Amino acid sequence: MSIQRAVVLLSGGLDSATVLAIARRVEDYECHALSFRYGQRHEREIESAKTVARELGARQHLILDISLGKIGGSALTTDLDVPHHRALAEKVELGIPVTYVPARNTIFLSCALAWAEVLGAADIFIGVNAIDYSGYPDCRPEFIAAFEKMANLATRAGTEKGSRFRIHTPLSRMTKAEIIRRGLELSIDYTWTHSCYDPLPAGTACGTCDACLLRLKGFMEVGIPDPIEYAKRSGKS
Amino acid sequence: MSIQRAVVLLSGGLDSATVLAIARRVEDYECHALSFRYGQRHEREIESAKTVARELGARQHLILDISLGKIGGSALTTDLDVPHHRALAEKVELGIPVTYVPARNTIFLSCALAWAEVLGAADIFIGVNAIDYSGYPDCRPEFIAAFEKMANLATRAGTEKGSRFRIHTPLSRMTKAEIIRRGLELSIDYTWTHSCYDPLPAGTACGTCDACLLRLKGFMEVGIPDPIEYAKRSGKS
Repeated sequence: MSIQRAVVLLSGGLDSATVLAIARRVEDYECHALSFRYGQRHEREIESAKTVARELGARQHLILDISLGKIGGSALTTDLDVPHHRALAEKVELGIPVTYVPARNTIFLSCALAWAEVLGAADIFIGVNAIDYSGYPDCRPEFIAAFEKMANLATRAGTEKGSRFRIHTPLSRMTKAEIIRRGLELSIDYTWTHSCYDPLPAGTACGTCDACLLRLKGFMEVGIPDPIEYAKRSGKS
Repeated sequence: MSIQRAVVLLSGGLDSATVLAIARRVEDYECHALSFRYGQRHEREIESAKTVARELGARQHLILDISLGKIGGSALTTDLDVPHHRALAEKVELGIPVTYVPARNTIFLSCALAWAEVLGAADIFIGVNAIDYSGYPDCRPEFIAAFEKMANLATRAGTEKGSRFRIHTPLSRMTKAEIIRRGLELSIDYTWTHSCYDPLPAGTACGTCDACLLRLKGFMEVGIPDPIEYAKRSGKS
């Protein structure tokens, strides 16, 4: 069987690490991991992405620079405050949160598409999730389906027969607990990963932003402690 | 009437300058021009974009940096040779040329979408053309239609009523000569613009790459000389 290449979007978080493990260890793709330095507040997630790519056997790891901070509009790329201690019910009521980065997944998938075209890869993996997620519009299955359709018209592939891009979202319908269980089965060490939106200067997770709360809830449901360190003020983990 | 904002993709070339003139002077949008430093061989087109944005009254001009050179795959971002002296018939036979930058319009439109969302703009203008063009898949109307559909699922707009993004392609069905005539009617001075894929070190257009040949053909059909300077070796203009 010939080697099948895939581009895997890798943020350094729990979800994308699990996706890389699935693409590599279950589906046996040669994985080309793609991360972004896009103006996020901290380098910590890039460091985690490097660790995850190395530990899970990515063939290569490309980090693109893109100055999304100039566009603004998000607490993740500007000095807007990241919300803390939000109950999950409140999240649903309030709609799309301030941590939403406008069109981020569209931009990241577009770059993945460009790289896939150059690599001759027809498969792109992304760790979007429509169950335990932060309420971002670009995590929904209907967005992914529309992106895939567009991708096949955007590229050389769209002008030739037999080579269609597929966007794989293996986590789409899983709860955070199911994702963690799957990752543990695939021997992921979640200390490699970083999920926090608003870490302390040393990189320690805050334990109280939406991303930390979702992650902690997942580990609680699995019934094991989250192996990463949290800031003392959270009183969790 | 309230002010309508638009994001206009501006490369500094003849087409996008004409699009900005249409958006600003005909359709009366408050125009937010967006350009990219994406690893292209020369800064000349960014300088032209700045001139065009200023002269045509863009409200602001944002230049994003994105390291597409790391992805490669194109003569415009790597040291592959840009083809010269290709007959237009040959172009059609050979398919997509080496100057194609994988998924470039997808990436640029995705960034325009992000900025439009932040600005509260529902309208995005792009100077794609499906008549006198270089044969890139991401210039075709079916790609633009698919992008627009995806955009409305990718963003906050897609989760609310009454605010739909529209991708405007006013040049889509015009010949290069028609575009130039339209621009001249709108008082564009085409010395502001730069189209060449492979300029001399001083920024002078080569006169022999696909972009120069298309431009020169357009001016020839209009019956006036192209006002920009060309390298002597071309023997044209």
